[in-house]
Amino acid sequence: MTLSVYLSGEIHTNWREEIMEGCRAAGLDVAFTGPVTDHAASDDCGVAIMGAEADKFWHDHKSAKLNAIRTRKGLADADIVVVRFGEKYKQWNAAFDAGQAAALGRSLIVMHCLEHQHALKEVDAAALAVVETAQQVVQCLTYVQRGTLPSTE
Amino acid sequence: MTLSVYLSGEIHTNWREEIMEGCRAAGLDVAFTGPVTDHAASDDCGVAIMGAEADKFWHDHKSAKLNAIRTRKGLADADIVVVRFGEKYKQWNAAFDAGQAAALGRSLIVMHCLEHQHALKEVDAAALAVVETAQQVVQCLTYVQRGTLPSTE
Amino acid sequence: MTLSVYLSGEIHTNWREEIMEGCRAAGLDVAFTGPVTDHAASDDCGVAIMGAEADKFWHDHKSAKLNAIRTRKGLADADIVVVRFGEKYKQWNAAFDAGQAAALGRSLIVMHCLEHQHALKEVDAAALAVVETAQQVVQCLTYVQRGTLPSTE
Amino acid sequence: MTLSVYLSGEIHTNWREEIMEGCRAAGLDVAFTGPVTDHAASDDCGVAIMGAEADKFWHDHKSAKLNAIRTRKGLADADIVVVRFGEKYKQWNAAFDAGQAAALGRSLIVMHCLEHQHALKEVDAAALAVVETAQQVVQCLTYVQRGTLPSTE
Amino acid sequence: MTLSVYLSGEIHTNWREEIMEGCRAAGLDVAFTGPVTDHAASDDCGVAIMGAEADKFWHDHKSAKLNAIRTRKGLADADIVVVRFGEKYKQWNAAFDAGQAAALGRSLIVMHCLEHQHALKEVDAAALAVVETAQQVVQCLTYVQRGTLPSTE
Amino acid sequence: MTLSVYLSGEIHTNWREEIMEGCRAAGLDVAFTGPVTDHAASDDCGVAIMGAEADKFWHDHKSAKLNAIRTRKGLADADIVVVRFGEKYKQWNAAFDAGQAAALGRSLIVMHCLEHQHALKEVDAAALAVVETAQQVVQCLTYVQRGTLPSTE
Amino acid sequence: MTLSVYLSGEIHTNWREEIMEGCRAAGLDVAFTGPVTDHAASDDCGVAIMGAEADKFWHDHKSAKLNAIRTRKGLADADIVVVRFGEKYKQWNAAFDAGQAAALGRSLIVMHCLEHQHALKEVDAAALAVVETAQQVVQCLTYVQRGTLPSTE
Amino acid sequence: MTLSVYLSGEIHTNWREEIMEGCRAAGLDVAFTGPVTDHAASDDCGVAIMGAEADKFWHDHKSAKLNAIRTRKGLADADIVVVRFGEKYKQWNAAFDAGQAAALGRSLIVMHCLEHQHALKEVDAAALAVVETAQQVVQCLTYVQRGTLPSTE
Repeated sequence: MTLSVYLSGEIHTNWREEIMEGCRAAGLDVAFTGPVTDHAASDDCGVAIMGAEADKFWHDHKSAKLNAIRTRKGLADADIVVVRFGEKYKQWNAAFDAGQAAALGRSLIVMHCLEHQHALKEVDAAALAVVETAQQVVQCLTYVQRGTLPSTE
Repeated sequence: MTLSVYLSGEIHTNWREEIMEGCRAAGLDVAFTGPVTDHAASDDCGVAIMGAEADKFWHDHKSAKLNAIRTRKGLADADIVVVRFGEKYKQWNAAFDAGQAAALGRSLIVMHCLEHQHALKEVDAAALAVVETAQQVVQCLTYVQRGTLPSTE
Repeated sequence: MTLSVYLSGEIHTNWREEIMEGCRAAGLDVAFTGPVTDHAASDDCGVAIMGAEADKFWHDHKSAKLNAIRTRKGLADADIVVVRFGEKYKQWNAAFDAGQAAALGRSLIVMHCLEHQHALKEVDAAALAVVETAQQVVQCLTYVQRGTLPSTE
Repeated sequence: MTLSVYLSGEIHTNWREEIMEGCRAAGLDVAFTGPVTDHAASDDCGVAIMGAEADKFWHDHKSAKLNAIRTRKGLADADIVVVRFGEKYKQWNAAFDAGQAAALGRSLIVMHCLEHQHALKEVDAAALAVVETAQQVVQCLTYVQRGTLPSTE
Repeated sequence: MTLSVYLSGEIHTNWREEIMEGCRAAGLDVAFTGPVTDHAASDDCGVAIMGAEADKFWHDHKSAKLNAIRTRKGLADADIVVVRFGEKYKQWNAAFDAGQAAALGRSLIVMHCLEHQHALKEVDAAALAVVETAQQVVQCLTYVQRGTLPSTE
Repeated sequence: MTLSVYLSGEIHTNWREEIMEGCRAAGLDVAFTGPVTDHAASDDCGVAIMGAEADKFWHDHKSAKLNAIRTRKGLADADIVVVRFGEKYKQWNAAFDAGQAAALGRSLIVMHCLEHQHALKEVDAAALAVVETAQQVVQCLTYVQRGTLPSTE
Repeated sequence: MTLSVYLSGEIHTNWREEIMEGCRAAGLDVAFTGPVTDHAASDDCGVAIMGAEADKFWHDHKSAKLNAIRTRKGLADADIVVVRFGEKYKQWNAAFDAGQAAALGRSLIVMHCLEHQHALKEVDAAALAVVETAQQVVQCLTYVQRGTLPSTE
Repeated sequence: MTLSVYLSGEIHTNWREEIMEGCRAAGLDVAFTGPVTDHAASDDCGVAIMGAEADKFWHDHKSAKLNAIRTRKGLADADIVVVRFGEKYKQWNAAFDAGQAAALGRSLIVMHCLEHQHALKEVDAAALAVVETAQQVVQCLTYVQRGTLPSTE
């Protein structure tokens, strides 16, 4: 049973690598996907390929749509969508991905620090697990795939 | 052709009333739904009905789930989902609703001020209209229902 | 916004009447459906209409399928499915209905006493509200439809 | 034609092993999945990974949701869902899984002893096979995959 | 709870009228639809409206497709599909409708005489009720809508 | 049985009025929808409501999306989609609507002159009726609703 | 591009072998599935595994449901469903499979002799190809996979 | 992450080869499908296999349906549908494919020259990328799969 996991949200810390490394170390059979995490490329991909725009709205629009091709594929193929909300920024795209994942019936794991708990209550309410650390995500995936808990591994 | 419109997002200004009043004044045939906008009731409904919780997480969890019954019904019945992002707060529930609406194939109208343009680019990219004012939403609904434009009414 | 509510489960107490009466008293706009609650008719409807069976299995089979026509219609039309587990009996049909409701994306309200909490944890985990009394169901429906809480009515 | 089979329900006897061993012995091409059958791990996984809960309801809730990630994946990938009801306990989660499987259009095989026949009539009515023993499940899977019957093997 | 019932199959006897009259007499709230039962019109509608065809295959093709508009609408709107197989003819369109109804999740009632039992076993296996007479269909619909049985009315 | 019919495609002749008037004259119960047929309004609605664009691509883009809200609603609600291809212009939006209608399982009626037969073969192959005149559409709708043919009315 | 093809219908001649052999000879990449074609096994599988039935109806019922597990899997996995109607028997299961295939959106190829043309017009109207011989099915599959025609191979 | 890409539309230039060659050169993991591009075979496949037709409409009809088997398979399996509109011809089948792709939720990339911009505005509005050259399609696919932009490769 390979698990397909899409890692959505915050792109400024190395939480994706921590999760992927943790799963590798545990020997799990997980296929990870996620958005393009090169911030500049993600912002400018549309105009870089399809031509410059004078208006910032359309500059962003072209890139957001091109990125959506990757996001849609990732969400469509995923069994589990992990969405991390970082400490900073609006991160509406993370919540938007979570909404799509929920409506598509994907299992949702939300990862955020305590201070965001109240603001994320609607997202958490749609999740099957709410965690704070990458290690907890690894432990969840380990349990889902093997049925073993941290203390018994 | 009655249009069913769900008004999601910001609850601190009277934008919903402006839209509803504008549509009424224009004589449109629109059925509006939306979340409970009494902030205190929305935060406490779960414990008020199903019993107190010592832990803030579960206090919020109970309420978020009870509110989700209303949200799901509204999104399921809607032809059009209007999501407004206000100037303040995280508003992740608004982006979460937008994600659900997009995945369910509902037509999405997003309403926000210019300064949020970059942060909302993924949500805007999934929308069929992006506006700044309640009046523009009324004009969109008028056009969708009747085919008439502001200057020709 | 008329709410369509299917009342599934236990048929030996008058909890359905309590909920319906409570909603009527509150002036809510709710359309209720539910299974046939005449136990003898429900058990024997198949053979009464389509001919006797020597084997108890097929006697029950014919009735269960005929009842399924009504259940399917009720679940398909419902916005909300309320499932009550009583104190006695196996009540596997109640859990079966809850499973169908969850998979169909219906909003699930589960009603049971405290002593069944552990045995029902999987069903409760799929629910948007877990309550003990018919009055709480009425309060949930009141809140979902009107946004008002018990103390503020 | 690999068959994907989810083995749901009772976790106190070795019926899963009997079925898997029987299919192996017969040389069938079947991929089995199922819930975590370590009862203690299944009950405590939520708090073990995501932190302790003072309230038994939330203790169970966290675990039930984490287990649901595995169940959803298993049901989504399955061609056939075998649900076994044992002699003891409420086993509402088994009936809940059966309900989900039926609503998702999975082929349902129900396995239970005679004494539960009446109580399980609604579940049996949605099934494509009702059996008493693990050997019969193996024979069903053998027939479905190869078209051969017990006497002709 | 209005029941929507599509009456498919045999068009040479007045079984549809018997069912409709029986439901009217019982005061049920049922909306009936069905195919065009004027055999000549049904066979020739395509060429009558869209022009003659030299080849019988295309003559029939045009009519079959035009009739399919009505059938699709009826099946899409139906809660229950009643399919009657008469004593004569191939009646493959009846079995074809039954297959569509089953795949669309409509509740299926099959009506045929005993001698066709073996040939119809696959269709019967997908049905929620198998009957021989129009009166039994009326009794089924009465039970589904009101929960009353023949002897208790 | 009210039929919901979306009239898509060519906007330069009065074929919609002919069909609507023909159905009215025949006393049929049909609810018609369709795109905005005021060409100028349809082209400029986006910028008229949401602000001017320097670039023709985005000028058109805004309008096309706003029009899509109406189209989606019409296609979603329709039992039957009639698509007319006129003598002139590319009319790719008509073929695009036909593709959406086919994929959504709506019954498709295509209306075009003989000279376009070869170019429209893929669209015609997905249709349930192919006609040349508005009168034939009226006759099709009359037959679908009432089962009567032109010569027998 | 592997094509998945389900071969439904008549089980008394070797048309399945002809098609499979023809595709093998042509070197096509096709995965074939189909029902159990051992008539006796197909008729008796239910009681052979799950116990004898006194009543012929239930004898057949048990077998039909067990066979349905295989049929559902085959139809669910198929890109193309080929349904052959032979010269004899009612073959309602063939038409029932065709109805399911059509409603599930599978591409349908129907194979029958000329004399059945009128009786099969509704099934043919839902098909993407209507043929008389196994060789034509092989030619269709060759064209679909490679784009080559008989004369050009 | 293998990307499945269906290349729809214009068949008179070698744009498919350019895209496939470009992706091969870039070492991307993409599986391409597309229609039969041998114009004569595509036009005559129906009659070549299933027999001649006197009427051009049915000649085309048979071929269009046989081709639809391939198109449906390609669209169903695709993550991304690229539709190219050439300079000449009506190309309604291209727009029809685009409509199907959009309704099925496939990511749509549209490729056309500037002069067709206005006529294609509805199709472009449903696309996630609008480009002019095969090289841009390769760059889009490179970015979607690897996150790298032209200048950084």
